[in-house]
Amino acid sequence: MSSQPNHPALLIPGPIEFDDAVLQSMSHFSHVGAPFVTTFGETLSMLRKLFQTTDPSSQPFVISGSGTLGWDLVAANLTEPGDDVLVLHTGYFADSFSDCFETYGVKSTQLKAPIGGRPQLPEIEKALKERKYKLLTVTHVDTSTGVLSELKALSELVHQVSPETLVIVDGVCSVGCEEIEFDKWQLDGVITASQKAIGCPAGLSISMYSGRAIEIFQSRKTPPGSYFASFKNWLPIMQNYEAKKASYFATPSPQLIHALHTSLTQILSKPLSERFAAHRAASQRVKKAVADLGLKQLASNTADQANGMTAIYLPENVKAQELLPNLLEKGVIFAGGLHREIATKYIRIGHMGVSVTDPQRDDIDRAISALGNGLSDAGYQKS
Amino acid sequence: MSSQPNHPALLIPGPIEFDDAVLQSMSHFSHVGAPFVTTFGETLSMLRKLFQTTDPSSQPFVISGSGTLGWDLVAANLTEPGDDVLVLHTGYFADSFSDCFETYGVKSTQLKAPIGGRPQLPEIEKALKERKYKLLTVTHVDTSTGVLSELKALSELVHQVSPETLVIVDGVCSVGCEEIEFDKWQLDGVITASQKAIGCPAGLSISMYSGRAIEIFQSRKTPPGSYFASFKNWLPIMQNYEAKKASYFATPSPQLIHALHTSLTQILSKPLSERFAAHRAASQRVKKAVADLGLKQLASNTADQANGMTAIYLPENVKAQELLPNLLEKGVIFAGGLHREIATKYIRIGHMGVSVTDPQRDDIDRAISALGNGLSDAGYQKS
Repeated sequence: MSSQPNHPALLIPGPIEFDDAVLQSMSHFSHVGAPFVTTFGETLSMLRKLFQTTDPSSQPFVISGSGTLGWDLVAANLTEPGDDVLVLHTGYFADSFSDCFETYGVKSTQLKAPIGGRPQLPEIEKALKERKYKLLTVTHVDTSTGVLSELKALSELVHQVSPETLVIVDGVCSVGCEEIEFDKWQLDGVITASQKAIGCPAGLSISMYSGRAIEIFQSRKTPPGSYFASFKNWLPIMQNYEAKKASYFATPSPQLIHALHTSLTQILSKPLSERFAAHRAASQRVKKAVADLGLKQLASNTADQANGMTAIYLPENVKAQELLPNLLEKGVIFAGGLHREIATKYIRIGHMGVSVTDPQRDDIDRAISALGNGLSDAGYQKS
Repeated sequence: MSSQPNHPALLIPGPIEFDDAVLQSMSHFSHVGAPFVTTFGETLSMLRKLFQTTDPSSQPFVISGSGTLGWDLVAANLTEPGDDVLVLHTGYFADSFSDCFETYGVKSTQLKAPIGGRPQLPEIEKALKERKYKLLTVTHVDTSTGVLSELKALSELVHQVSPETLVIVDGVCSVGCEEIEFDKWQLDGVITASQKAIGCPAGLSISMYSGRAIEIFQSRKTPPGSYFASFKNWLPIMQNYEAKKASYFATPSPQLIHALHTSLTQILSKPLSERFAAHRAASQRVKKAVADLGLKQLASNTADQANGMTAIYLPENVKAQELLPNLLEKGVIFAGGLHREIATKYIRIGHMGVSVTDPQRDDIDRAISALGNGLSDAGYQKS
């Protein structure tokens, strides 16, 4: 249950609702003492479990910053100026990731899908055969469209067609609510943030890299293009903390890392498969309700629909700027559109973390009921 | 009073002790709602007061990240590859700031003082006349040595001798406890972090730039060298939030920003002059106690001694790795040395924020008494 039972249920595609214990762990905590060193070290080790990697050469990072910082980590460390990268485009975030690569002098080629879709394997295969790409990026769940990408088959394809190309996943809106098997699927990098399905306050960039990715970094011909986002600066820090040795490059946030520790402990206290199943079940309930209301999702293909969020086209005469405040009065917070081309035409519902996994919470019921009533208030009737 | 009265007093040169209200403000908070937009906007406006700037062209930034990120903000936005910068060296942090500049292709010249000292105006004048520097950086308080730099006379000199050179202050360990008059002293940039004298949990990079610095950014010939640290990405966000309009580049941390809002509200509820006087008074008590114990500070010149921390040489036979755990048992946490050349030979005491300003706290008394007893336990007697 929430510490503020009367506050509106936050049901956007992240940040999400917190568990009380997560919030309580953000109390006084020194970053120099042995307890914090242990907490930070354990947090890094728990991330290995969350990402389902047992390969000791995999490397987790936890750095103060927004999820966006993860793009700089990839671009500044795993690519060098002049490199080519292939960015699979399923919405807003691919554009920004491309901008990030260009900042570091890297040539970004986008493979764009129509809105609500995702690039298909045959066209990806064709692109990979046309040019040698240092890495390929895929947005696992595009928060702007609710489109889920399929990682396993994609990674298999990349390893077959262009085995030297690193497979990099933007998992900001997927880690913690969508299945990710880092080792088995041979991923090279997954970046995420604390505030989405991991259920921790915003402010931490979280990522995992393969031994192969770290080797690519270590064999760079040019130094990393960023100082704050440099693996050169952070790698020894992460390795030291995981070995329970304090180490300094920049002051970490003991409060946020302690909250992350609490959150990961909760997540890992049950089999991950149960967690993913709970998210799929909640998602199905939301998506059925949306269909029952006669509404369409941006992600038209069932296989492409995310399990932690749903993006819904509004009926013709319903305006987001009127519906969202009405829903807030009903006690739920949804998000407006984010995809530049259609931002005003749709809304987004997040269903991640405690809103989904805590059986004592009724956030999903409230969301479904408020959506129906809100649309009805707006004069919408299912045709 | 602290929410955990029995925890050891954290008396290191940051992060520092928090006020309960600051911690309590880190509760549930959505980053999309109107309340957060107002909080973030007010926070940016309050920073203008903290930095004592009324010039509307000054620009505050609050970004998720460590204090270290502030160096990237300066190097990636205010300098271009090939530029020359002059870094005044008073310890560890100048080395790192120089590394940061070099990362972005900028040529860094260091003006080094002997340990415990600071570069003197005549040598700075000489350096400024020898080469044209795009900017000069000064560590206001070097956390590694406790050396305080004099900003007013320095900035006057720069404006006289090399008026086009920007004056950039690393104020990580000074903003909130040392006098800074941004407008009056004609500073162009002051970077800091949330966890030192501002008294907020770590995780926010906070900075203020002059209109002149922003113009230098806007007239760049090359794009900024970083994506996450790019003014191009953040400037519209900060300007929108201060105008109370939500805006998106990367997800902010509502918890940390709310905590910062609470902390700034407390700081600004009294005249800043009182706050600085309280820090000077506490500092004098600590420094007198240190002298009474027959110990020497790294900063040998009284005028060069910081008011928010004290760095003390240990007696010959006292080892930091034995003294610090003994002090922890006595209920106070001090920090070890950080300056590479003498790290094991000294310790650091922080006296910032609520430990100094809250009359109900006895942190400073406990610190002084524990230090005396700890040294006595270690067999030290004043000679």
